[in-house]
Amino acid sequence: MNRAALAALLDGVRDGAIPTDEALRRLAAFPAEDLGFARLDHHRDLRQGRPEVIYAEGKTVEQVVRIAERLQAAGAGVLATRTSDAQRHALVEAHPDVRVNALARTAWLPVAAHAAPTDEAPLVLVVAAGTSDLPVAEEAVETLRAFGRRVDRLADVGVAGLHRILAEESRVRSAAVVIVVAGMEGALASVVGGLAAAPVIAVPTSVGYGAAFGGLAALLGMLNACASGIVVTNIDNGFGAAAAADRILAGMEGGS
Amino acid sequence: MNRAALAALLDGVRDGAIPTDEALRRLAAFPAEDLGFARLDHHRDLRQGRPEVIYAEGKTVEQVVRIAERLQAAGAGVLATRTSDAQRHALVEAHPDVRVNALARTAWLPVAAHAAPTDEAPLVLVVAAGTSDLPVAEEAVETLRAFGRRVDRLADVGVAGLHRILAEESRVRSAAVVIVVAGMEGALASVVGGLAAAPVIAVPTSVGYGAAFGGLAALLGMLNACASGIVVTNIDNGFGAAAAADRILAGMEGGS
Amino acid sequence: MNRAALAALLDGVRDGAIPTDEALRRLAAFPAEDLGFARLDHHRDLRQGRPEVIYAEGKTVEQVVRIAERLQAAGAGVLATRTSDAQRHALVEAHPDVRVNALARTAWLPVAAHAAPTDEAPLVLVVAAGTSDLPVAEEAVETLRAFGRRVDRLADVGVAGLHRILAEESRVRSAAVVIVVAGMEGALASVVGGLAAAPVIAVPTSVGYGAAFGGLAALLGMLNACASGIVVTNIDNGFGAAAAADRILAGMEGGS
Amino acid sequence: MNRAALAALLDGVRDGAIPTDEALRRLAAFPAEDLGFARLDHHRDLRQGRPEVIYAEGKTVEQVVRIAERLQAAGAGVLATRTSDAQRHALVEAHPDVRVNALARTAWLPVAAHAAPTDEAPLVLVVAAGTSDLPVAEEAVETLRAFGRRVDRLADVGVAGLHRILAEESRVRSAAVVIVVAGMEGALASVVGGLAAAPVIAVPTSVGYGAAFGGLAALLGMLNACASGIVVTNIDNGFGAAAAADRILAGMEGGS
Amino acid sequence: MNRAALAALLDGVRDGAIPTDEALRRLAAFPAEDLGFARLDHHRDLRQGRPEVIYAEGKTVEQVVRIAERLQAAGAGVLATRTSDAQRHALVEAHPDVRVNALARTAWLPVAAHAAPTDEAPLVLVVAAGTSDLPVAEEAVETLRAFGRRVDRLADVGVAGLHRILAEESRVRSAAVVIVVAGMEGALASVVGGLAAAPVIAVPTSVGYGAAFGGLAALLGMLNACASGIVVTNIDNGFGAAAAADRILAGMEGGS
Amino acid sequence: MNRAALAALLDGVRDGAIPTDEALRRLAAFPAEDLGFARLDHHRDLRQGRPEVIYAEGKTVEQVVRIAERLQAAGAGVLATRTSDAQRHALVEAHPDVRVNALARTAWLPVAAHAAPTDEAPLVLVVAAGTSDLPVAEEAVETLRAFGRRVDRLADVGVAGLHRILAEESRVRSAAVVIVVAGMEGALASVVGGLAAAPVIAVPTSVGYGAAFGGLAALLGMLNACASGIVVTNIDNGFGAAAAADRILAGMEGGS
Amino acid sequence: MNRAALAALLDGVRDGAIPTDEALRRLAAFPAEDLGFARLDHHRDLRQGRPEVIYAEGKTVEQVVRIAERLQAAGAGVLATRTSDAQRHALVEAHPDVRVNALARTAWLPVAAHAAPTDEAPLVLVVAAGTSDLPVAEEAVETLRAFGRRVDRLADVGVAGLHRILAEESRVRSAAVVIVVAGMEGALASVVGGLAAAPVIAVPTSVGYGAAFGGLAALLGMLNACASGIVVTNIDNGFGAAAAADRILAGMEGGS
Amino acid sequence: MNRAALAALLDGVRDGAIPTDEALRRLAAFPAEDLGFARLDHHRDLRQGRPEVIYAEGKTVEQVVRIAERLQAAGAGVLATRTSDAQRHALVEAHPDVRVNALARTAWLPVAAHAAPTDEAPLVLVVAAGTSDLPVAEEAVETLRAFGRRVDRLADVGVAGLHRILAEESRVRSAAVVIVVAGMEGALASVVGGLAAAPVIAVPTSVGYGAAFGGLAALLGMLNACASGIVVTNIDNGFGAAAAADRILAGMEGGS
Repeated sequence: MNRAALAALLDGVRDGAIPTDEALRRLAAFPAEDLGFARLDHHRDLRQGRPEVIYAEGKTVEQVVRIAERLQAAGAGVLATRTSDAQRHALVEAHPDVRVNALARTAWLPVAAHAAPTDEAPLVLVVAAGTSDLPVAEEAVETLRAFGRRVDRLADVGVAGLHRILAEESRVRSAAVVIVVAGMEGALASVVGGLAAAPVIAVPTSVGYGAAFGGLAALLGMLNACASGIVVTNIDNGFGAAAAADRILAGMEGGS
Repeated sequence: MNRAALAALLDGVRDGAIPTDEALRRLAAFPAEDLGFARLDHHRDLRQGRPEVIYAEGKTVEQVVRIAERLQAAGAGVLATRTSDAQRHALVEAHPDVRVNALARTAWLPVAAHAAPTDEAPLVLVVAAGTSDLPVAEEAVETLRAFGRRVDRLADVGVAGLHRILAEESRVRSAAVVIVVAGMEGALASVVGGLAAAPVIAVPTSVGYGAAFGGLAALLGMLNACASGIVVTNIDNGFGAAAAADRILAGMEGGS
Repeated sequence: MNRAALAALLDGVRDGAIPTDEALRRLAAFPAEDLGFARLDHHRDLRQGRPEVIYAEGKTVEQVVRIAERLQAAGAGVLATRTSDAQRHALVEAHPDVRVNALARTAWLPVAAHAAPTDEAPLVLVVAAGTSDLPVAEEAVETLRAFGRRVDRLADVGVAGLHRILAEESRVRSAAVVIVVAGMEGALASVVGGLAAAPVIAVPTSVGYGAAFGGLAALLGMLNACASGIVVTNIDNGFGAAAAADRILAGMEGGS
Repeated sequence: MNRAALAALLDGVRDGAIPTDEALRRLAAFPAEDLGFARLDHHRDLRQGRPEVIYAEGKTVEQVVRIAERLQAAGAGVLATRTSDAQRHALVEAHPDVRVNALARTAWLPVAAHAAPTDEAPLVLVVAAGTSDLPVAEEAVETLRAFGRRVDRLADVGVAGLHRILAEESRVRSAAVVIVVAGMEGALASVVGGLAAAPVIAVPTSVGYGAAFGGLAALLGMLNACASGIVVTNIDNGFGAAAAADRILAGMEGGS
Repeated sequence: MNRAALAALLDGVRDGAIPTDEALRRLAAFPAEDLGFARLDHHRDLRQGRPEVIYAEGKTVEQVVRIAERLQAAGAGVLATRTSDAQRHALVEAHPDVRVNALARTAWLPVAAHAAPTDEAPLVLVVAAGTSDLPVAEEAVETLRAFGRRVDRLADVGVAGLHRILAEESRVRSAAVVIVVAGMEGALASVVGGLAAAPVIAVPTSVGYGAAFGGLAALLGMLNACASGIVVTNIDNGFGAAAAADRILAGMEGGS
Repeated sequence: MNRAALAALLDGVRDGAIPTDEALRRLAAFPAEDLGFARLDHHRDLRQGRPEVIYAEGKTVEQVVRIAERLQAAGAGVLATRTSDAQRHALVEAHPDVRVNALARTAWLPVAAHAAPTDEAPLVLVVAAGTSDLPVAEEAVETLRAFGRRVDRLADVGVAGLHRILAEESRVRSAAVVIVVAGMEGALASVVGGLAAAPVIAVPTSVGYGAAFGGLAALLGMLNACASGIVVTNIDNGFGAAAAADRILAGMEGGS
Repeated sequence: MNRAALAALLDGVRDGAIPTDEALRRLAAFPAEDLGFARLDHHRDLRQGRPEVIYAEGKTVEQVVRIAERLQAAGAGVLATRTSDAQRHALVEAHPDVRVNALARTAWLPVAAHAAPTDEAPLVLVVAAGTSDLPVAEEAVETLRAFGRRVDRLADVGVAGLHRILAEESRVRSAAVVIVVAGMEGALASVVGGLAAAPVIAVPTSVGYGAAFGGLAALLGMLNACASGIVVTNIDNGFGAAAAADRILAGMEGGS
Repeated sequence: MNRAALAALLDGVRDGAIPTDEALRRLAAFPAEDLGFARLDHHRDLRQGRPEVIYAEGKTVEQVVRIAERLQAAGAGVLATRTSDAQRHALVEAHPDVRVNALARTAWLPVAAHAAPTDEAPLVLVVAAGTSDLPVAEEAVETLRAFGRRVDRLADVGVAGLHRILAEESRVRSAAVVIVVAGMEGALASVVGGLAAAPVIAVPTSVGYGAAFGGLAALLGMLNACASGIVVTNIDNGFGAAAAADRILAGMEGGS
């Protein structure tokens, strides 16, 4: 249901062609297709400008495949995150052209019209403190690609060896948005926040052990970062950071 | 120390006029003026484009006044946050033209050249769930003003009465950045995140009692918000949210 | 041991037919049949009006089967919750007419006299925020059925897309009791609490990751819900919510 | 704005007398009166059937008085909870007929038409484990009175002396709703839950010390109560328990 | 090394027969036999009056068998707790007369001289709230047997059905020490503490789910029990409770 | 109401002199005198053998004085713990012979018949790790005195200087019960538990700072003490430790 | 009691001049002077090589003065930490030559023989992230001075402006031990740990707000620092860090 | 890149042979070899004096092998910690001379020039409280060996049997650095801290159950140790303790 159809409906109410009750009923029933276990939202782009994302964890293989199928049938692109091996395998069987990334645990079915960003598009730089943080960083990278954004990455630049991140300072400073992915104490967010003037989105990861408490240390560290204006997502939430970057870039382009 | 002076210094090294050791010494010594208890950073604008902010909590009245004085002497604007009544009083005595906001606990000494934003400037909308969240919201508002941003606010639109926020949907949707300030369960962030396509910065507050645990409930709620792409700051950190919004708006204006 | 038998015993004491000591002994020994590892409580209905429920987690397959057998022999209906696959398999073998629900992890052996509720019975509406919350919601649904209550469900109506729950507002408002099942930030409870005037029972689920901390975020969110009069159960406790709804409905029907 | 006015507005849209845009504007602007710092909601009774409640903590004396004044001017009853001594003093000055309860920290301005409940009305029994839990219990009692409910109380019946609560078993069993207020380990909720078949609402209090952790021990204890169907509110939330009981009683009376 | 040998050594120092240095060396080296990974303490009975206990968790099968062997060779009885199936299997192979209890996860090699307690010995009553608490209760029971104490048990007497524990009040009151084993909210400890005048040792268990947080709810509940003089052990520590009861009984018998 | 009166009542039921209903009424009404805010329990000694204890925190001065007065009128001894200066002052005014201990925050009104223990009575040794732990230790000492127990104390014997506690080893080993009071890491409990064979009751205190987290570190340390058979009370609960010691000593004396 | 006296005592035992029992008594009684509330340890230097330190928090003014007096009488130097204003005032009255530091909350009474360190002594560098961390840093500095160590400090070098700490890199690298004092996220420890090869002792402070949780964020951050070999003290424990540095320096000097 | 090469580069800048831009580029690009997923740091010894350590957890077998290979090719020694069985197996296949320690989970590839320490080298003593703490202790031992340090160990000397650690007092006092590895309540750190004047590094382990909370109890205990100057590492961080000891020993040897 696109914006035109919606305007027509409202005009119908104004003109008396459609009774109020009927209009309300249509509005309520139309946009969300009910599969019983999930409610697909075909006109979400009216609100958010983004294709549908399936959070696959806790869903059965069959549910994931069926939701993807219905979304694609409705003309929407599909990005599945937190997929299991079995879910990705089933998606590949059903859609041989799906683009899977095992490290990121993503599967992406682009819409036909999907166009890669130009080299002039504003850049999102995804910075990972250590090798073990890469799965979360990759989830952010894959999401940004699916959202049509230009993205680059930087890995293994933890602050114990400051020269590593300082050697990349110009890349950090040239990005439109920086996503910092770090576990352990998460100090990289503070350092990058001091180097860059652009928006910095910090993603704590569950990398670490003992008093890392599954990412709590990094989360608290990033929330208390001494560099001002750093914002934080949930632990291991590479997707969320990408979605936040996408909101920012949409604003830079003058629309949503 | 401005950019020109810095380039001159580097050229001096290249030309042999300034020995390497001397150059290093100057670079290290120059930008930060050491008051013994604080290190003022006059060339920070080279890095971040923002005037100096004094976090007043835990500092004595004398320290706050002295830092403000030296910064102003260096031509910088000053914004003091988390000030006590005594600190604000002392600042008013020293600088009669300081603009204080008791609810926000801020004191602001603008630079002479400070210009208010035009009506075409992108808007930051600060949304507060309840009356008790206003001090944090005001800190964000005052900071954005000091940073030269256009800002508006919306108060008492908690989700228990959904019609309140729905009645303001168009204002929410027209903002360039939305800052959501909420205590208790922090659900307003999820709802606003679903209404707006723009960047949404969520600020948990310590408003609430019992199992609110000083803002922990709102913090966890916002980190787990079901609307995608919402980012979070520390509890009660209205300043941090404003600084993050400022980073985003700087990018929209094509510079950092 | 029914109420009549109990009155007879007390009269016996009054009449001197039963010595005090003997009466005490009987009262203590009678109602609870001791299996060594469990104490079955055949006259519980004297106190609570509900058939016996077996919490199967942490019990062996044999214990579950034996308890069910003895309860049925005593004429009681049996509802087993949190069953493992093996436990359900064994129950089906022993009682081919048992009604199992794998998603809800329940197994139900109705009493012969069990009657389905009429269409005029007050309705319990079970609302699940997301697809992943369905197992907990189903546990509530199955329990309510076993308790003879009329129940309906609503799925995938999380607050990130407010129109979903708003489209169902009339159903929400027509229920006698609403059970809200949600993980992540649990904001749906606040929103439903604002829409409905009926009792709202919130069930936090362990759905989510990172700072969801196994349901803690949703639990705290619901305890701090800004809509007044919302009550909360333990994390993932669909059974408990159903039992609470059953207590409420019993009161509406004028008895316990 | 009552229901009739609302229906008229909708008919006006249908008849073309009121343009859609105008209707939307009125709906948004009408019900909530904006005081700048608070948004009063005069047609809330359309949704919830309850007078307005002011949560006074974190509000200034002036804000509380002004909100009460505007609500009363709009014909609404007012109940202020968590009031400070100063707030209650100011309310008494402004409204000599206000009924204050210092222990409960409440102040109540009934509507003229307020009628006390009859002796046949269903009873809410508020049970407090210890003397120190009384302030929270009293908040529940005062709220129920303001809501027109019949209420009784029972104090100092902690489980360390079981005979105390057993001696009152018949009162417990005769209530339509039982509110259990307890700090420390909160075990009274489990015991009362086993005695009563009616809805049991448990309110943990911050009474206790050391590992009571401000009510956390009682909260966790009540959430894990071994008696089934017990529901829990936030720590010290006597008001919330009363509001929940009110929702239940409204259902018993056949309306919401 | 028994007390006589120790006195002889000290006398040797006094008499000059043994140089001070030598005496110190012997004292240090003698009592503890060093296996490299464990230090066996053959004269512990000099200090504590109890046979050696092996905490098997985190030890290899070989380590457990070897320690048991050396202890038995030294004439000591052995009790292994928290054994795995493999550890118990290996112990049975090495010592066919070992007494294993799979539910309690214990294995016991009595000394030859072990004598069962008489019927006049003071009784330890182990009370378990639910069927799922039995493994911890059994660990206590087995430990008490190995320590030569008279022990009885009571199961499935949770407070949701108060008549169950009240029916056993006389048994509870006749015990010299009561050990209460309970998970979930742990309220049974408070109730038993009110019924019994004897020492009550409360053992929280990890039984429960959600906000039970692995036994934290029961632990906090028991630490805050409103019945006075209740003491608490670590979560699931049936052995510790038995050892505490043993300390108490040793005192009653007039020696350690 | 003494045991004789209770037997008479039961015999009356048996003989028909007292109807069952009347007997129930008397039993329920008799023992607990209801002051409205507190329920005094004059026949508690039937159950526990201890005079009444008033936990004064959270009670008003008037409540404490009135409860003490009624208890004394009923012939009971009174021990008030956690008293404020004002409460102790008021008690001294009302009862000039009350024995107050400001460090322990206790006030004690002995019964006339109170007799000091003989030198042969079993000894409770209260061991405090540091000077700052003394208030909690004193609360235990005062309680034991009020309970008629023989008590001694040992102060400033923290494990950082092991020779201090080792120098007192014989006193530690000669006690019938040892109460260990320690804050910070609470290691003294483990060391004393290894030295003594008698029951060891560990009381964590809130002494310490930073990561002591109000006694949590000591509490966890004591619960995990590597010496077996150590039991723990709530943080700062000197009274509870004394009550537990009293339960143990009562058993040693062959009665409760 | 010095080493010579101790050897004489042991020789006395060997020679028969001192009976064993007498020797034990003397050893136990001698070194620790018992003030009733504290046990002074005059031969501690035998074990640790450091003068006595009084932790003043939780002690009365009188206790602090009396302990200081007795220690000084015994020829020991005294350092009081965490003193209140009143305690420092009383110490100054009693000992006009005491050296107090209000920011550090210390008071120091040197022994007569106290000698300042030479310029060749190894240096401890105390680095404070922000101005608000200075009190903790000063406590470390004062302690090191009292211990006769050479100490220097560096303030306001938080990582948000990396150039600040980089400008001081040579000072950081030339220290024998570095103490890093930081609140908020504590990232400075990781950065300094990467710059310096010397021992780095990290002291988390309670500076910060919201999710800093009283220093927990900094503590966890430092424990998880990605630079290897960083060790951590309790929150705000400047004294402890100084004591640890002192242990290290004693080793460098070839003795304790 | 050694120090000489670096000096040459800087001289080149001074002499004009190398343009500033070029110098910066080389400095940034040179030291860290980028494998895509990891950034190898061949000139780290310029900063820290230690060979490269691979933290293997969370890395694939292939990544570990490849990193080890490149490091060895660059002439560096390699120590892999937290290796899985598969990772160690693959390393043995690739480098038959690798020295693996399954208990410690380490694999070590020494440089050719590696020399064992002499008997005069200062000693690190690793003390483990219990048998279950050995894996963490062994990680420390293996790391110290790889770092060329002299190391010894002491096992099973928990404080419940004080004579065990007292019997080893002279060994404890003769070490240059003591590492204390303990789980449960971690009290051994306090005791050893009192016995030794040398630096004491405490490593909490996750050994224990229930309220040990995965090492939290030991961690808090050690942070609050009453013996002064004890420093702490992350839970189970044997490597970190060894690295800290190595920093200390490097200082003792007069270099960093």
